[in-house]
Amino acid sequence: MSKGLPKRSEDYSLWYNELVKRAGLAENSGVRGCMVIKPYGYAIWEKMQRVLDDMFKKTGHSNAYFPLFIPKSMFEAEEKNAEGFAKECAVVTHYRLQNDPDNKGKLRVDPEARLEEELVVRPTSEAIIWSTYKNWIQSYRDLPLLINQWANVVRWEMRTRLFLRTAEFLWQEGHTAHATAEEAVAETVQMLNVYADFAENYLALPVVKGVKTPNERFAGALDTYCIEGLMQDGKALQAGTSHFLGQNFAQAFDVKFTNKEGKLEHVWGTSWGVSTRLMGALVMAHSDDEGLVLPPKLAPIQVVFVPIFRKDEELAQISEKVAELKQKLEAKGISVKYDDRDTERPGFKFAEWELKGVPVRVAIGPRDLENGTAEVARRDTKEKQSLQLEGLENTLENLLHDIQENIYNKALQFRQENTVKVDSYEEFKRVLDEKPGFVLAHWDGTPETEERIKEETKATIRCIALDTPEEAGVDMVTGKPSSRRVYFARAY
Amino acid sequence: MSKGLPKRSEDYSLWYNELVKRAGLAENSGVRGCMVIKPYGYAIWEKMQRVLDDMFKKTGHSNAYFPLFIPKSMFEAEEKNAEGFAKECAVVTHYRLQNDPDNKGKLRVDPEARLEEELVVRPTSEAIIWSTYKNWIQSYRDLPLLINQWANVVRWEMRTRLFLRTAEFLWQEGHTAHATAEEAVAETVQMLNVYADFAENYLALPVVKGVKTPNERFAGALDTYCIEGLMQDGKALQAGTSHFLGQNFAQAFDVKFTNKEGKLEHVWGTSWGVSTRLMGALVMAHSDDEGLVLPPKLAPIQVVFVPIFRKDEELAQISEKVAELKQKLEAKGISVKYDDRDTERPGFKFAEWELKGVPVRVAIGPRDLENGTAEVARRDTKEKQSLQLEGLENTLENLLHDIQENIYNKALQFRQENTVKVDSYEEFKRVLDEKPGFVLAHWDGTPETEERIKEETKATIRCIALDTPEEAGVDMVTGKPSSRRVYFARAY
Ligand SMILES: [Zn+2]
Ligand SMILES: [Zn+2]
Repeated sequence: MSKGLPKRSEDYSLWYNELVKRAGLAENSGVRGCMVIKPYGYAIWEKMQRVLDDMFKKTGHSNAYFPLFIPKSMFEAEEKNAEGFAKECAVVTHYRLQNDPDNKGKLRVDPEARLEEELVVRPTSEAIIWSTYKNWIQSYRDLPLLINQWANVVRWEMRTRLFLRTAEFLWQEGHTAHATAEEAVAETVQMLNVYADFAENYLALPVVKGVKTPNERFAGALDTYCIEGLMQDGKALQAGTSHFLGQNFAQAFDVKFTNKEGKLEHVWGTSWGVSTRLMGALVMAHSDDEGLVLPPKLAPIQVVFVPIFRKDEELAQISEKVAELKQKLEAKGISVKYDDRDTERPGFKFAEWELKGVPVRVAIGPRDLENGTAEVARRDTKEKQSLQLEGLENTLENLLHDIQENIYNKALQFRQENTVKVDSYEEFKRVLDEKPGFVLAHWDGTPETEERIKEETKATIRCIALDTPEEAGVDMVTGKPSSRRVYFARAY
Repeated sequence: MSKGLPKRSEDYSLWYNELVKRAGLAENSGVRGCMVIKPYGYAIWEKMQRVLDDMFKKTGHSNAYFPLFIPKSMFEAEEKNAEGFAKECAVVTHYRLQNDPDNKGKLRVDPEARLEEELVVRPTSEAIIWSTYKNWIQSYRDLPLLINQWANVVRWEMRTRLFLRTAEFLWQEGHTAHATAEEAVAETVQMLNVYADFAENYLALPVVKGVKTPNERFAGALDTYCIEGLMQDGKALQAGTSHFLGQNFAQAFDVKFTNKEGKLEHVWGTSWGVSTRLMGALVMAHSDDEGLVLPPKLAPIQVVFVPIFRKDEELAQISEKVAELKQKLEAKGISVKYDDRDTERPGFKFAEWELKGVPVRVAIGPRDLENGTAEVARRDTKEKQSLQLEGLENTLENLLHDIQENIYNKALQFRQENTVKVDSYEEFKRVLDEKPGFVLAHWDGTPETEERIKEETKATIRCIALDTPEEAGVDMVTGKPSSRRVYFARAY
């Protein structure tokens, strides 16, 4: 099953692509740049959605749904945002097909059915949503407006990779409106923290929380906050963003409210999102050369039972025991699969469930039954141990907890080992080539220097971390003064 | 709040539109034919989704996600399906916008960024999914393949109505593949039954289960099963469809499997779907001139508490009691809202929650507290009664159960009263004009007669019900023999 999975050390990129396909997460479709998310991959995404959705609701947000299409004139209203996305917009120009007179059985676009105004397929929904908020907001009593949408978006990408960069992807986009700048900034930071909480406690991915440089800001935002994780190849991956929009969209769409003093003011806005890109982060952060390593909290199957048997009566006895254990585990909310296929051998099954990243595998044979034990293997460390069947549901519950923690700690240790302070440009380049990871360096704060470093090294400023201490220094390239280090890395 | 809601008896259609908007379910957007689903409406849709999704999973289906876009050549592969949807396809022809040289600050479609092949925005996903299944299915061991997708689809409609007919709508579409025709038919019928179960036990909408006539079949299907409900104006509404696709898509996309005997065969398929149209059915089946009447199982808020007070200390005492009751109710999984706004009077609140269809309203004043009682009003019958606070959580739990049943029974009684057998065309027309509803009449089985009746009366054959007994008769129009009655109605 996992035979022939490329090794990370040999070709990380190929390893990733093959793993995503072979583990049944996703595949390329017959539509350029668009992927098919397969059932096993979608089951993980559903788990992510459920957890995030609960977090959004706990922080006071409601879901809604806005149109897929945005008329061009509406799209271009906020100029910076429009300019930022113009180059990757899919555009609907016609609304009908007809039989092709020159080609029997084929269709062509009906030239008579041209739209008066072209429709942009949403690359992000600020425009359509703020054009709607105009009608929803009159008074301070209508604020804050805290809305989220689960949706598909389209950004036409020339070079795509499964989950990480696809023409169509799934995401959630929060869009909130507030009476004051302070409240909007607080919301922006709150959602950044929600994302960091999710990344660390569910994805098991330690993240750096920070602010983007102006160069890397969301088009139309005054500030973009982000969480950045480090993948096993030393590249950074932006796992979520939260934008303080100021009054930009309120001005573009004329969204005003009467404040408590009876004066008209423009509304303050935020937007924030995470996408199916998180699936890529999940794979790249933890998996190994045998396959996926899923954190138990996001694993569609947390425990798989594999019977070891020769005779039918052996299988019957094992099945009876497993049914009993399965029930006890499920009563604890643990998802269990019993792989009793008689068409495959145990070794094949072991490899398959390793490939699919199931956190715990329990093998039970006739000898185990006699002894009242089972062979329990954890996916993360590959350790095996013989455990008592009596009370196994409790042992496994604790084990799943330990695995979740261990995966996080391993990723944290990796990040710590691959985050270095650097004070010269020479060293900066050497680190990037020899032991890539996060590089903390001084930067003079200019877009020119940032641009130059990007061109010369392909490293970008991932963020100015929120928790970086002030520290006097000089820019490693220009020698100009700097008051704090920023996070550089090559990135996905 | 509900002031000025039009009356059903005066203008049913206007009543519906106004109710959908004022209750906060949905509104028209700035995009032709596309709606915005507002938070309260979306919360109901989420409840529907959750219930249906659980039902699909219990019957062995997994979710996945397939691309929004379908290349034209792929779309046209199954000719009947393509022909059926060609006239309502939104088509993407370009993938980039650019600055308009003639119009500063505006964008235009970049003429250089024309797609080599146009992309159809999915009106339904058989084509893209079967083109994918070709790679997933080789052997009988890969079957059955039981997949569902939650997605948005686009069908360009000239005349749209909120929820009932919109250019973009949300739905789920199941797409399954099977080794035999029998198994595929069984799946088709199973999903019809799942839909009927959902309609009757959650939407509280009694439905007729049946088969469509060839005229009304899904384009590309061999048989279309459907559930049909009756709205309060006597019009029918198709609430869900389940299609037996035969081998049509397998042939169009060359999807074959090796059977147990080692021979290659085409795969058998089904597809089935329900959409945000169900929201329209929900509104039209049960609501009244004061607003929505929501079945408790789908109500985002099941119980609303309204404090009746003059002084702050009265409010404080009531709030304390409500907090206690709220906790007990929520422990039973009942969703509760406490409307303690001090900006609105009780009468305004009562009207607002009536408009929003909250099944149970509990008003508590200082006198109630003294007596240990509360005034409980049910939304469906508008009955009020004084109930003991002691054990109120149990009383309300039972009450919600009764309301769910009562709403269903009322709709069932309405349908029974508005389903008539008719044996002459004269009577048929008179019934449709004077007391519209389901009309059971004999039909000679020809598309010509069906078409003629449709043109002359606007009534269509909703379905040949699965449970209609055989009964010799003659077609009311042509006098030709018929062996069973069919369901006619004017429909949404
Ligand atoms: Zn960052
Ligand atoms: Zn029918």
